[in-house]
Formats: sequence, structure tokens, C-alpha cells
Amino acid sequence: MSNEKNSRVSLLGLGAMGGALAAAVVEAGYPTTVWNRSAGKADALVDRGAVAAGSVREAVAAADVVVACLYDAASVHEVLDPVVDELAGRTLVNVTTTTPEQSREFAAWAAGHGVVYLDGGVMAVPSMIGRPGSSILYSGSVAAFEQHRSLLDLWGESAYFGEDAGAASLYDLALLSGMYVMFAGFVHGAAMVAPAGVSAGDFAERSAAWLSAMTGGFAGFAAVIDGGDYTVEGQQSLEFSSLGDIIDASAAQGISTEVIGMVQNLIQRQIDAGHGKEGFARIIESIKHPS
Amino acid sequence: MSNEKNSRVSLLGLGAMGGALAAAVVEAGYPTTVWNRSAGKADALVDRGAVAAGSVREAVAAADVVVACLYDAASVHEVLDPVVDELAGRTLVNVTTTTPEQSREFAAWAAGHGVVYLDGGVMAVPSMIGRPGSSILYSGSVAAFEQHRSLLDLWGESAYFGEDAGAASLYDLALLSGMYVMFAGFVHGAAMVAPAGVSAGDFAERSAAWLSAMTGGFAGFAAVIDGGDYTVEGQQSLEFSSLGDIIDASAAQGISTEVIGMVQNLIQRQIDAGHGKEGFARIIESIKHPS
Repeated sequence: MSNEKNSRVSLLGLGAMGGALAAAVVEAGYPTTVWNRSAGKADALVDRGAVAAGSVREAVAAADVVVACLYDAASVHEVLDPVVDELAGRTLVNVTTTTPEQSREFAAWAAGHGVVYLDGGVMAVPSMIGRPGSSILYSGSVAAFEQHRSLLDLWGESAYFGEDAGAASLYDLALLSGMYVMFAGFVHGAAMVAPAGVSAGDFAERSAAWLSAMTGGFAGFAAVIDGGDYTVEGQQSLEFSSLGDIIDASAAQGISTEVIGMVQNLIQRQIDAGHGKEGFARIIESIKHPS
Repeated sequence: MSNEKNSRVSLLGLGAMGGALAAAVVEAGYPTTVWNRSAGKADALVDRGAVAAGSVREAVAAADVVVACLYDAASVHEVLDPVVDELAGRTLVNVTTTTPEQSREFAAWAAGHGVVYLDGGVMAVPSMIGRPGSSILYSGSVAAFEQHRSLLDLWGESAYFGEDAGAASLYDLALLSGMYVMFAGFVHGAAMVAPAGVSAGDFAERSAAWLSAMTGGFAGFAAVIDGGDYTVEGQQSLEFSSLGDIIDASAAQGISTEVIGMVQNLIQRQIDAGHGKEGFARIIESIKHPS
């Protein structure tokens, strides 16, 4: 295989994430072209050796691999539809956050125009790019994933989820949903202790340590879910997990109970259906079967 | 100060957590008595040097410090009310999960009977007791906390939150609420990817790493909350955090949107009130001011 650094790379979109991706590429010595809708964002990258393209067409024409990190699916079409003729025969790596349906639509659009398409989901904040803990999920063209693996690995651990271009987006959104829900739980806790004079900063420090430790429980829930038997021994039962104390304490602090009430509703529907002695992991049945 | 290991310790309640607490005490060489409502749970501890009490009264009479780790607040009263005369003059460390109100009620009850009261919240699963990552929150008698600090430190990092006996419970429940909400978010994500053939085990591994890393974001949210200015630069705005993609993708997978919809409701109320350009941390206003 030829030295992959002969691949010329263009990056479209230099927001915080796009800028971090571009910086990793230029630092690694790839011939790098960058473009952003508004000017000025490219300056630091140009200082490090990147070329700033005057237009999207110029950026696309300069590259073997075009990386799009834009605001949303509509922005990707807005930027690339006018230059799709130029994109033909090249590889598009789209790491813009999209739904699985949108990713599949991009794959079909790319196939219809002779563009090799790889969809990506970046599981990192910009400061983590290229550092431990960063992982990027891909689906779509396996050939593109394999050919450009060294490039992709610059950003974090690369994982490939199959030819269905929507697979990475789905996984990405599932992980993001966990993050947003966790954030809401943290903020709920901060609101609970605030009236007692506890600063959010103090609570954040303890919460981060506590919740990191408690992610150790996921594997046990997963084993029960994958095993399909919610009655196996050693689990915390749904009845024991009743969140009445937390709801009462939240109400006593004068705050909304909707955050923790969401969990209690998942639990209660299973208890009401006669499964109170079974394990907490059974709440997945409440989610899988909307009431 | 005399050797604190002269303190005689009795533990009431030998469930998974109570058993772990008792094991740490007996291993450390304290004269240890144990009691459990149902028999058999004490055997392993007796093998290691503990004495099994035949009754609660016998356990209380044998101790300077009585540690209660029972099912709930009602169980604590049920077990201790009949022997409160024997408890007088001794120290009660109650690590049973209770609401702040219940903890304050126990403190008043103890004071009325000449019992020194320390309320505790164990922030660990039983396997973590005495290991890194375990922390126990206390409030109530500062004298008891200081006098028995070496004993308390056997179980994890001890933190004291003040003479208000309800303070530790409040903090405990706030951290637990974050945990349960995070678990629900993880299970929601597992339900999202399940129809695509992703096992819960695979998703658990990635989720645990991802969410642990994302707890790093708490400090930033907390700084904004404590600073009281949701407009400071560099934050992800509420508008950008709109969770429509995740909700759409969840619905497309045929699962309930109530878990992620809970977060979207918190965001949307702030956007509707005209704060869409402000930071995500502003969701605490939705929680502090129930609609």
C-alpha cells in the first residue's frame, strides 16, 4: 500500500470540532486544505501549514478525501450539492451529527453521484481529539474505512459498524442521549442540594466521581438484558429501586420532580405489570414498549 | 486520645451493604457484634471473629457504637424503638437510606432519649466498601464524627456535612438521583441500538467509557450555575442542544421517547422563555421553577 500521507485531505467546517479535526490532520503532515463559511477560522491552521481554500469547489478539487464537519444535515447539502460534480470519484467522510435516516439519505445521494461515502460520529469533545478517550464511529463504505484508516485514527479510536450508513449515527445518537440524560440528572441533583447551601461546584466534583464509578453497573444490567431473564439472582429489584424517597425529598426542596419522576414511571409500569420482584434492568421493557 | 479500637461496635442489618460494612470492621480488629433479622447472614462474620447477638437488645448492650444498615426508616424504628432505653448513652450511626426529613426525625428521637446520633449515606456499592472510590457522607453529631473517625474511615472517604442531621441524606439522595437518571439514559440508548442488532453488552462498554469521560463536563456547568450568568461565552447553547434528532431517531426505532423527552422539555421551556442563546446549564432554572 502506498504511503497514505499522499492522500490530500480537505476539511469543510472549522467550528470547535472541525478545527480540532483539521489541526490533527495538518500536524500529522497530510497535505491539508481547509474551508469555512465565515473567514478567519482558518488562520491558525494556515500558520501550521494548511491551505485555505477560497471556495468549497476549490477545497473539494484539492482533495482525495473531503471531511465535512458542519452544523447539521441541511448545511451539508447546502454546501455540497452545488459541487457534487467535483466530488465525484472522491471520498466524503461526513462527521456532521445526523439522524440514521439522514445518513442513509446521504449514502444514497453519494452513490447516485459516484462519491464514496463514509459516515462518522465523533464521540469526544474537541479538546479530546487525538487523545485517549476519543472514539469515532463509522459506517458506510468499508473500502473507504480501510483505505483511510491511518487518517481516521488520528482523531481517536476508530470503530466500524457496517455498510448501513445509518449505523454509526444511530450509535452516536444513542450515546449522546445517555450523555444528555446524565447531564439532566446531575443538574437535578445540583438543584436538590442548592437550597442547603451546597455549591454546584462542590456537587459536581462528588457527582463526577460517583457517576463515573457507577458506570461500572452498566455491564451487569447489560448481561441481564442480553440474557433475557430479568429474574436472575443478585439483582436490585424494581421494588427496592422505588424512588419515592428521592421524589419526596425533591418536592420538599421545592424543585420539579419531572427528572427523577421519568425514571420512577419506567419502574412503576413494570411493577404495575407484576414484575416488581425482578431486576432494575427490566425498565428497558418500559422503553421498548411505549405506553 | 485512647486507642479507638477499644470501641465496641455492633452492626444491625447484614444485607449486602451491612455485611460489607461489618466485614471491614471485624477485619480491622474492632470488638464486633452483629445482628440480622433472619439467621444465617452472620455465619461468615462469626468465622472471622465477630459475635452473633441473639437479639437486638443484646447487640446494643454489647456496643459503644451501634451501626444501623436496614431496609428503610420504618425498619430502623421497628428494630430500635423497643430497645431505646438500652441505646441511651451510646452512639447510633444510621446509614440506612432515608429522606432528610426522616434523618432529622431520627436525630430528634435520639436526642430525646439521650442517644448520640450520626446520620450517614453510603456512596458505594457493597463491593467498593473500604476501596478507592467509596465515600460515606455524614451529618449530625460532630463529636461522634470526630471521635469515631478511624472507624468510619474503614469504609471509604468520610465527609461531614454539618449538624443538620438531614444534610447527608439530602446529598445522598441527590447523588442517587443522578445515578438512577444516568441508568435510565444508558438503558434508553441500549433500547435505541437493540433493533440494529447491537448487544446491550457492547453498548454498555462504550457507554461506560463515554459517560465517564463526559462527567468531565459537570465542572463547567457548575461554574456557570455558581456564577449565575448563563450568557458567558464558550458554552453550548440551549438551541444547539435541541434534541430533536435523538427524539426522531428514538421514535423511528419504535421505542418510547419519554426518557430523552424529559431533557428536551427542560431545554424547551428555557427556549420558549427567550433564553435559547444561553448555555445548557440554564436547564437548572426549569428544575428550580416547576411549571
